[in-house]
Amino acid sequence: MVATTLAPFDWPVRVYYEDTDAGGIVYYANFLRYFERCRTEWLRALGIEQQRLREKDGLQFVVVNASIDYRRPARLDDRLTIRAEIAETARTWLVFAQQALRGDELLATAEVKVACLDAQSMAPARLPASLAMKIKTESPPR
Amino acid sequence: MVATTLAPFDWPVRVYYEDTDAGGIVYYANFLRYFERCRTEWLRALGIEQQRLREKDGLQFVVVNASIDYRRPARLDDRLTIRAEIAETARTWLVFAQQALRGDELLATAEVKVACLDAQSMAPARLPASLAMKIKTESPPR
Amino acid sequence: MVATTLAPFDWPVRVYYEDTDAGGIVYYANFLRYFERCRTEWLRALGIEQQRLREKDGLQFVVVNASIDYRRPARLDDRLTIRAEIAETARTWLVFAQQALRGDELLATAEVKVACLDAQSMAPARLPASLAMKIKTESPPR
Amino acid sequence: MVATTLAPFDWPVRVYYEDTDAGGIVYYANFLRYFERCRTEWLRALGIEQQRLREKDGLQFVVVNASIDYRRPARLDDRLTIRAEIAETARTWLVFAQQALRGDELLATAEVKVACLDAQSMAPARLPASLAMKIKTESPPR
Repeated sequence: MVATTLAPFDWPVRVYYEDTDAGGIVYYANFLRYFERCRTEWLRALGIEQQRLREKDGLQFVVVNASIDYRRPARLDDRLTIRAEIAETARTWLVFAQQALRGDELLATAEVKVACLDAQSMAPARLPASLAMKIKTESPPR
Repeated sequence: MVATTLAPFDWPVRVYYEDTDAGGIVYYANFLRYFERCRTEWLRALGIEQQRLREKDGLQFVVVNASIDYRRPARLDDRLTIRAEIAETARTWLVFAQQALRGDELLATAEVKVACLDAQSMAPARLPASLAMKIKTESPPR
Repeated sequence: MVATTLAPFDWPVRVYYEDTDAGGIVYYANFLRYFERCRTEWLRALGIEQQRLREKDGLQFVVVNASIDYRRPARLDDRLTIRAEIAETARTWLVFAQQALRGDELLATAEVKVACLDAQSMAPARLPASLAMKIKTESPPR
Repeated sequence: MVATTLAPFDWPVRVYYEDTDAGGIVYYANFLRYFERCRTEWLRALGIEQQRLREKDGLQFVVVNASIDYRRPARLDDRLTIRAEIAETARTWLVFAQQALRGDELLATAEVKVACLDAQSMAPARLPASLAMKIKTESPPR
């Protein structure tokens, strides 16, 4: 994990019926929703709204790969903390290290690589300048 | 219900974990997904693909209102039949009467009004000609 | 709408990618998720958590019917207010009048009838006493 | 990948509005739904229904980890082939190699580790005998 000046970002999520399945626990794919809500709010906290980003700057973020470890189940009515932290950066992409926690208990971890694309051509594009500026790493970008 | 030459249309749906909730049954909002799959396949059977409809004809269907009665729960692994039938038609909209069945057992019924819009202006637009031709009603359109 | 001492209850909802569809708007079934989140938080504000309600009191709420009017689309990044208000009550069920608002703009309205069931037998059961006490209506229960 | 006598298993999936997002493509978490439908149908083809497995044998499958590579987007109305193949087996778990294809075009790949648990204690349990018998590997189980 490269050093960055950006602290881990936490976002609270409540588990509703819509999130659970007949096993009585949060359906496994829905953790990817939670992780994405957290990344979205992280961006918003940095001043970036994705709808405007696409309309004004012609840029779009897409997930390139994701790997998730499920450790313990989350259940109806649980209040979770979803965490995002930058693990790696480059000119056109970011890797997030993410966690789902219930209090101190770690329920799931994920690594999610997100690429910045030109929304028209779908070709790799530089991260928005406002974002790149905020991600000041001590190690050189790869 | 106006008379129409179009027979009821059935589409099979299997219940997966993704559809269920911690109550052990299909989550109530997911019946609206099932009903929409059936309307989509009904359109496809009539030769209309919605992606192409938007790109070529600039038309889009949107749900204007929906009312659903839930009678019995559906469960994991159930094989359901989802039914769509035209209940009313007009120049720019359709009302579907829909059912979710498990064998002969009626699980849910719905009435769903779908309007045809100009995808740009979002103003009401005539139903696609190919569709209007197939919906021959004996009562005059309203 | 019967008079009740309970004020309308508002719950904020943010629109994420997960909620939208290829039409660029919130998928129609997802409003039912929003409406249910609001009812859940209304219950929680009254001291009722549904997981515990089922485990301790053997009671479960289920939606009996729902009717929704869609007036205007909601979009990515929108911040909505979801509102729930009791429209009718009886010994074993409630009807909620619900709204989805973006600022002052009304996007959707719904009427949702929720029944209280014995979680084992699935037979109608009296509303939890703590809830019934809070719903003081001036008109007699039906 | 260990040798096994079980051939790759294909399951067709159609992309509906419910699967897409405002980016105009299938929402990234929904590929995990597709992959799970395919594993479920693979089990069903081998004679195993998960609801009955839990009720009769007290066994439950849970996803332990998943890693997905997204290569190309899937779009509304696409007809996909979802593939599952056993990549590794042991006494209490399986690893599936999975693919999402549109014709010959590879859209996404995944590795998904699924563990068999005692549904009560949530402790690791042997795979159902009927399943273990069908997975005859040439290399010794780990």
